[in-house]
This record gives sequence, C-alpha cells and structure tokens, in this order.
Amino acid sequence: MIEAKTQLRVYDDTKAMFHLPADVIYLDGNSLGALPLGVAERVAQVITAEWGDELIRAWNSAGWYVQPRRVGDRIARLIGAAPGTVMIGDTLSLKVYQALAAALEMNQERKVVLSDTGNFPTDLYMAEGLIATLGRGHQLRLVAPEEVEPSLSDDIAVLYLTEVDYRTGRRHDMRTLTAKARALGIVTVWDLAHSAGALPVDLAGVGADFAAGCTYKYLNAGPGAPAFLYVAPRHADQARAALSGWMGHAKPFAFDLGYRPAGGVERMRVGTPPVLAMAALEASLDIWDRVDMGEVRARSLALGDLLIAEIARRCPSLRLVTPRAHAQRGSQVSFAFAGGYAAMQALIARGVIGDFRAPDIMRFGITPLYIGEAEVLKAAEIIEEVINGEVWRRPEYQVVNAVT
Amino acid sequence: MIEAKTQLRVYDDTKAMFHLPADVIYLDGNSLGALPLGVAERVAQVITAEWGDELIRAWNSAGWYVQPRRVGDRIARLIGAAPGTVMIGDTLSLKVYQALAAALEMNQERKVVLSDTGNFPTDLYMAEGLIATLGRGHQLRLVAPEEVEPSLSDDIAVLYLTEVDYRTGRRHDMRTLTAKARALGIVTVWDLAHSAGALPVDLAGVGADFAAGCTYKYLNAGPGAPAFLYVAPRHADQARAALSGWMGHAKPFAFDLGYRPAGGVERMRVGTPPVLAMAALEASLDIWDRVDMGEVRARSLALGDLLIAEIARRCPSLRLVTPRAHAQRGSQVSFAFAGGYAAMQALIARGVIGDFRAPDIMRFGITPLYIGEAEVLKAAEIIEEVINGEVWRRPEYQVVNAVT
Repeated sequence: MIEAKTQLRVYDDTKAMFHLPADVIYLDGNSLGALPLGVAERVAQVITAEWGDELIRAWNSAGWYVQPRRVGDRIARLIGAAPGTVMIGDTLSLKVYQALAAALEMNQERKVVLSDTGNFPTDLYMAEGLIATLGRGHQLRLVAPEEVEPSLSDDIAVLYLTEVDYRTGRRHDMRTLTAKARALGIVTVWDLAHSAGALPVDLAGVGADFAAGCTYKYLNAGPGAPAFLYVAPRHADQARAALSGWMGHAKPFAFDLGYRPAGGVERMRVGTPPVLAMAALEASLDIWDRVDMGEVRARSLALGDLLIAEIARRCPSLRLVTPRAHAQRGSQVSFAFAGGYAAMQALIARGVIGDFRAPDIMRFGITPLYIGEAEVLKAAEIIEEVINGEVWRRPEYQVVNAVT
Repeated sequence: MIEAKTQLRVYDDTKAMFHLPADVIYLDGNSLGALPLGVAERVAQVITAEWGDELIRAWNSAGWYVQPRRVGDRIARLIGAAPGTVMIGDTLSLKVYQALAAALEMNQERKVVLSDTGNFPTDLYMAEGLIATLGRGHQLRLVAPEEVEPSLSDDIAVLYLTEVDYRTGRRHDMRTLTAKARALGIVTVWDLAHSAGALPVDLAGVGADFAAGCTYKYLNAGPGAPAFLYVAPRHADQARAALSGWMGHAKPFAFDLGYRPAGGVERMRVGTPPVLAMAALEASLDIWDRVDMGEVRARSLALGDLLIAEIARRCPSLRLVTPRAHAQRGSQVSFAFAGGYAAMQALIARGVIGDFRAPDIMRFGITPLYIGEAEVLKAAEIIEEVINGEVWRRPEYQVVNAVT
C-alpha cells in the first residue's frame, strides 16, 4: 500500500490503480477514461451510507450541497485555476453554453463568435442554438484551425475554441491566442475536453476568461460524468448566468420568487447536483491529486513519439495527421486512412481499442496513468498486422455500428 | 421472492424493497425518495462490468446510447404518455427551460408567460433567465394559484405551472386548465416534480403540450438523479431545441459542423447522458413498473386524511394549508406554524423526518410504497409531543443549518 499523501509515479504506481480488462490495450481514454479501482466502492458507500441512511439529511451531513465547489477546487489545481473559480455540474455542452452566453453579454456591441472547424461539433451546435435564441444577428464564423490567429480582429466578440482538436490532436497555442484576443477586446472561451488531465493548463497564467471541460475522458470519472466551468475571478461577480437555476441563487433556500445570482462562480450552478456521479469523480481525483502534471505530459509526449515512429516505420499507408512538434500536440495520435472505420473495427476485435472519427480518422489516445511503452509497442504490432495484412478488408469489419 | 412480473401490493410488498434506517419515520420522500434495495448492486454492476470491462464499447454493447429514450418509455407509462415521447437527461431546471423556450417560439406574437406564486422558484428563475436572453420584451406574469384560471387570456403565450404546489400540496386541475389554455391558443408547460410517482397523470389525455419532472422525489432514483421531458407528439418534430447539443443531432456521429435536429423528442437530448445515475433510476423503476398508480393514489389520500385528522385532533396550533378535498391535493400534507423551522429540527432529532419551507411551512410527504398507517400514527404522536410539549422552543433547535 502506498501512503495516502505520497506522490505517485506515473504508470509505475498508477497503472495498478485501474481496472483494465485482460487482452485489451486501451487507447481510447481520450473518449472514456478507464475505471479507477476505488470507484465502485465509493459510489456504493454514498448510495448506502449517505442516501440510504442519512436520506435528506445528507445534504448537510455528507456535504452534498457544497460538493460541486469542493470538487471544483480539486480540478482547479489541474488546470491552473485558483480555488473558488471552478464549478462542477451538468454536461460540457451546457457549460460552454453558459460561458458563451456570459461572454457575449460582456461584448454586446460585437456580433461575431470566432471558432474553428476543428472545434467539437456540440460546441458549435450549442452556439448556433444560443445565437438563434438571442435573435440579435450574431454570427458564428468558422475558420480552419491554422487560420484562427490571423482571423482575430476587433469585430469579434468571443473567441470560442477547443484547445486540442478532437480529431487530429492539434493543439492551439492558448497563451498567444488569449493574449492577442484580449488585446483586441475579445473575450475567450476555452473548451478543455482534451486538455484537463492530458497536459498542463495554466488558465490564470494565460488570462483566459472562461473555460469548460468534461471529466469522463482523461480524468477517468465515468460515462456521463459531470462537467466543469471556470470563470476568471475578474468576471465572476458580473457574468450573467443565462441558465439561472435555483442552486445558483444567492439564497436558494429562501425560495424567493425573483432570481438574484450568488456571488462568484457559484452562480453558474443550475439544478440539483449529480451526487452519485460526483462520488465517482471524487474517487478518480484521489489519483489525480497525487500525480504531477509535468510528469504526465513528459510521458505522454514520449509515448506519442514512440507510436508515431513505430507506425511510420511499419505502416506507411497511415498518414499522420497529428503534429509532430510537441508544443502543437495534445495527448492523442491520429492517422488518416481511407479504410479507417473498418481498420478500427478489426483492431478492436484484436483488443486494441482506439476509435474512428468521420471521415477517415483513426484516433489513439495516450493516457500515461495506465498506458506505457510495452502497450504502445504491442499496439503498433497489431496495427501493422491489421493494415499491412489487409485484415481490415474482411466483410465483418465493414458493418457500421449504431455508435462508434 | 416475488416473481419478476407479478404486480406488487403497495406497501405490503413494496416496503421491504427499500432501505429504511431503523428509528426513522421518513416523511420527506417528496424531497428525496428512499433508497430501493437493488440500486447499489445495479450501479456497481454498471461500473464494473460495463464501464470497467467494456469501456468505450459499452455505448453499443450495454445500450448506453439508447438508454435515455428506453428509460423515458418506462416513465411515460407513469405519466400517461405514449412510448417515444419522453426523454431523460440533465436536471429539471434545464428541462423546463427547454420546454419553455420551445413553447415561446410556437407563440411568437404573444409575450406573456403566466405562472403562479406557488411554482417552484427554479422554474421562475429559469424563465427569468430565458426572457433576458431572448430580450424581446417577454413578461413573466405571476398570480396566486387560485387566480390562474380566471387569468387565462388570449395575450398569454405559455401557461407555465407546477401541478402540485411544493409548499402547500395544493393541486391544480390540469385537465381543465390545459383545455381552457388550448382553447385560447396558449401553449402549456407542466412541471410534474410532485406528480410523477405521486398520483396518476394523464398527459396525452389532457392534451398537455410539454411537461417535465424530476426522478429523485417520488420515483426514488437518488440525489441528483436525471430529469425527464415530455413533448406532445404533435409538436415533437417542430419544437426547436434551444439547447441544441450533439446528442440531439440527427446524426451525432457524423460530426457535421452544422446542427440538424433529430426527429421527435430525441432532439431534446443535450450532452452525454449520465450513465451511472441512470442505472440507479432503472433499478428504482423496477419497482414502479410493477405497481398500480391508482392504488398508490388511493393509499396516499387515505394516509393524508389520517395525518390531517390526527394533527387536527392533537395539535390545533398547526394550521393545515393543504386542501382537504382529494381532487385538490397532491401527496403531501403541510401545516403553517410560526415555530416551524425549530419544530422540524426537533422532529428530525426524534426520527420524524419531514422538511421546512420558508416562511413557516412544515411539510410531510406521503409515499405509500414505504409509508403506512402505523408510521403516520407514530409520527402524529411525536409531532404532538414536540408541539404541545413545547420541545421546539429549546435553544438547540433554533440554529439554522446551511441547507434545510
């Protein structure tokens, strides 16, 4: 047993803390992280001892009411944010919506939301929905990822980006873009879906205005785990909560008829917090509290380099779409391949689990807490077999599943 | 063991299916339902065998993707809705927001949302927030509950009500109000927070347009359990999804840059569904699938009558604020009492758990699946002790907790 407060060595100490099925090399932790060992017990304990025994009293006795902020503080440490600036709840779609709504109100004379074609679609869809609801002639302007920086101009209200591209793993330069945006009077909203737990993030240091992320990818909090929202302290007491639910009220239990926002990021709470899902998140954070994000990043880059080199050597028909330069890369490696869908099915059938993103991207997530060199080398071997041996052409791998 | 498909007798069969702490009479199931016995095991199974072993594959292999609609169908049966018209997800605050946004767009020439002062505050706050976001001069008009019917007029866009008042337990006549509203061209949005699992609801029969509810009260799905949204089939393919997340897209896994809503109620999905919380909901519905809502209602009314009669006889200083008439009553009994906060603390200390709602309401929820005559009689005795014995005046019961 490792003592409670010791720092953990990435992989050497942490791999044993995950439930990983035998005969699987899991390279899809960028989509759904693996299960940390303590989760089932923690959730069972919350169900039985808190909900079951304490019943309604648990809102106080078990701290359910303050949990979204308390857990937010544990995530704040991972993304370079001060305590009291991160709130947990809802889903990432809703958190980027709240952030964008607040950001647009801070810049009412401008009507353009600048994003890129590599942003995750739900961010774009939520923006479309918000723009239609606002009905004030806002425009969602989409440019290619590499065109974002030259497209910054003083007609833009909000720069609305995901730091790491979900398909290519290409990483924006958050520091430079945020600085240039701020100099032009543009408010920034960063989606950290592929950043939190993947690489060091320095929200306070770069001066980001808003940021949001999910916890079911690199943070390993389980399917449908709640999201988080960061609001820079300089905005937190002014930002309007467009989704003004009772938990974000200054006095939720006064049951006033009129809305009055709580101070700070607390106003970004909406409804009743997801207590059971939050218990899983807390158990997963027990690991994250004890690892060094710099070590995670160094290992991630080394493993990514290894996968890139191995595939370049073994499978020239797979075209690398992830930047080789470390500064421009997130924690995944992606290849374009015309038969990518079928190839991924064949890989999964052989225990190498990555995923496919339309139209032709094969993604492999690098999650150093439970993936090491041996796994990457073994995966590369199996990829070679499937691609070079034309295994992927077999009819059984052409069938399209409901969800991929 | 009772066989899988047998109908359950309310209380006689069902009480043993709940985890109820010894020495507690739980009259707060209208706030947070008690724990059904199978929940911890079901959730643990989803964590270990689905998330743990299947990992990302569980979206297909364990049916996570289709779960929100499948579970919606199980709730549909309890609220008089057809299969395929109810979607699970998010929180009630967000689901009433989606409903109100869609309803207002169906009636764009009108600018008034009519609600009452007995509506739960979060519904009012979310409406305030939506009205501000719309910025088109809408007005939230609040009248007393009994003034709703005479206030219906053809300048009203949306009638926006909770069927059962969270403080008094007063029940609106949903059938009459919906019919009058529709005759005047008013779209209806019903909040069923204190209806679903409390009394028979007939959404299709009354012709409601939209309805939403939570599952952590009478449906016993646990703290922060997801909400549900009903859209009448006549609107489902036209209603705009203001919170247009990727899971409500016609083809979520095509990752198109532009939003295109799914057909029907599916468009009201937003982000990734809360898989772990949904497992708890499914376990709780295993009981609800097998009880008759008419029997639940008959028992609820009889138990409510008993509590009203006992308190009238024992504690004349408690003023009944719940209507005696069955048709006008939900599934709770409430009393106004100036020392209500302290009295409720004293009751809780003696194992009778109800709750307090400002300014002076003591609420007692009637949940016939696990509350019977013996529990009501014992609670009445303890209430008498606390009130008539002036126990509630003791200093330790005057301290206000963070959350009540």
